[in-house]
Amino acid sequence: MNPKQIIKEIKGKQEEIKSVIFVGCGASKAELYPAKFFLDSNAKNLRISHYTANEFNYKTPASLDETAIVISASLGGSTPETVKANAKAKERGAHVISLTNAANSALTKDASYVICHRFAENYGAKLEKMGYALELAVEILEQYEGYAHYEDMQIAFSKIYDLSQRAAESAIEDAKKFAEAYKNDPVIYVMSSGATNEVAYSTSICLMMEMQWINSGSFHSGEFFHGPFEIVDKDVPFILLMNEGSTRPIDSRALTFLQRFDTKTTVVDALDYGLSSAVPKAVVDYFNPMLLTAVFRVYAEELSYARKHPLTKRRYMWKLEY
Amino acid sequence: MNPKQIIKEIKGKQEEIKSVIFVGCGASKAELYPAKFFLDSNAKNLRISHYTANEFNYKTPASLDETAIVISASLGGSTPETVKANAKAKERGAHVISLTNAANSALTKDASYVICHRFAENYGAKLEKMGYALELAVEILEQYEGYAHYEDMQIAFSKIYDLSQRAAESAIEDAKKFAEAYKNDPVIYVMSSGATNEVAYSTSICLMMEMQWINSGSFHSGEFFHGPFEIVDKDVPFILLMNEGSTRPIDSRALTFLQRFDTKTTVVDALDYGLSSAVPKAVVDYFNPMLLTAVFRVYAEELSYARKHPLTKRRYMWKLEY
Repeated sequence: MNPKQIIKEIKGKQEEIKSVIFVGCGASKAELYPAKFFLDSNAKNLRISHYTANEFNYKTPASLDETAIVISASLGGSTPETVKANAKAKERGAHVISLTNAANSALTKDASYVICHRFAENYGAKLEKMGYALELAVEILEQYEGYAHYEDMQIAFSKIYDLSQRAAESAIEDAKKFAEAYKNDPVIYVMSSGATNEVAYSTSICLMMEMQWINSGSFHSGEFFHGPFEIVDKDVPFILLMNEGSTRPIDSRALTFLQRFDTKTTVVDALDYGLSSAVPKAVVDYFNPMLLTAVFRVYAEELSYARKHPLTKRRYMWKLEY
Repeated sequence: MNPKQIIKEIKGKQEEIKSVIFVGCGASKAELYPAKFFLDSNAKNLRISHYTANEFNYKTPASLDETAIVISASLGGSTPETVKANAKAKERGAHVISLTNAANSALTKDASYVICHRFAENYGAKLEKMGYALELAVEILEQYEGYAHYEDMQIAFSKIYDLSQRAAESAIEDAKKFAEAYKNDPVIYVMSSGATNEVAYSTSICLMMEMQWINSGSFHSGEFFHGPFEIVDKDVPFILLMNEGSTRPIDSRALTFLQRFDTKTTVVDALDYGLSSAVPKAVVDYFNPMLLTAVFRVYAEELSYARKHPLTKRRYMWKLEY
């Protein structure tokens, strides 16, 4: 079933949905954020929350019952905390929709609905987890409350995968320059705003810390001026993922400051890749994270080549029980 | 008016409240988190959200109207983004409650209600912003939905300030050891879980980056295993703020891993300061952040002495327009 049919079927069973709860770990948690952000921004009645899976398991919200839709994600479908979250959600009677690359994985056992996304085929396919979560969010809003820009969202969904794939392919020269410039840096900061906030987060904890063993921190570009900016100095490297749309002035203000102090800054800007030419302006906010994820993947790949440290190299994961 | 009276008066004017929206910047944003966490965990109908102020200003949620209570905070009451957020909230008809140390500051102009908290008097007084926000959250839940542990919360509020003050005073020897051990580290990570999640965040972006110019990152201790833990090595320093209550197993799992690899780890544990002996077990989760904030303040002070870098020293803040 596609997202529209899934939500229609849930509505047939449960006329009153009060809460939409997003659950995942690490990159899979972060990829649910644009959907969470969309509902946070647009819903007037639905309650929205977003948990790392073990927090959901150990501090289960009182709102988890048959009036809740739980959307969980795990790439390989075997993340133990997320599998356990599905069991807990099912036990409480919630409607569980799971996103995974792996049909018949442990994650699918207690899910009422499963959407299998592609992953490794190309830069566009890697965005499907994020895209399906957002589609589910749009369907929930449209079917339970109504949403004025529903058709615009459909147009955007029909464009964003190809646009992102082309953007990623065109980014290689800039990515090589970034990799050469940053390959010896001991710490790299990442920031963004709006729907892209947790792309900054996953870039920091996954691409930098996990996959390159580079020290890193991330924060919202609006928070930059309320603490982090005191670390700014010529030799402290920043990556700014710039959004088109509502929160662009927040990103721009951070960029102005970084440039004023001649900070080592790499800007990856959705505007440079034509996001708002391809996607209706009314919904452009929600598609920055997909485009920027695709483009920055190329940057991370080039960084890994320049550092001779494959993105797949691990010290602990896949090697130990923990 | 106290929190109870404020919410009673709002209820007299507006029987239906749908959304509770927390707004602030930096440390003031983080200090609203325990209240947000409390409502997220316990509310079944109320919608809960939490914004850095400029995101609220530029991407104003559709739910902001007369059915919303906005709780904003700014220590000096002059943070421009938060002042602007109050104006926007008032314009949309929301009920605005502001927490500040500065009566008659710009923040109070568009607030329907103002609670002035103390700040510099002692370690306990520094917690009042966090405490009043939590009290407001408890009153909102009690008066709009009912809350089974309302009396337990009142007992806890009557104990937490003195307990935190005594805990801070007793922490000085451990804090000195921490300061000596960490004073030359180029990067320090901070993690926690549950209601304390954003104490880890503000420790990282404010105490480390802003006030000590030490590189830092923070994350939820449940997220540690989904990216950040690959950075673990003997010489990479971590601070773990350990909670009593529901999410303790999450913190403990992270500690087990850090110890297994003989990582440079400092644990500040609410259990060591007797939190659950003083506070009713049913509500202990929500008081970890106050206790741990008080204790870690002493650690930060000792670090600043050992590094001969006052916590008040800035490169940009208070010196430039930006």
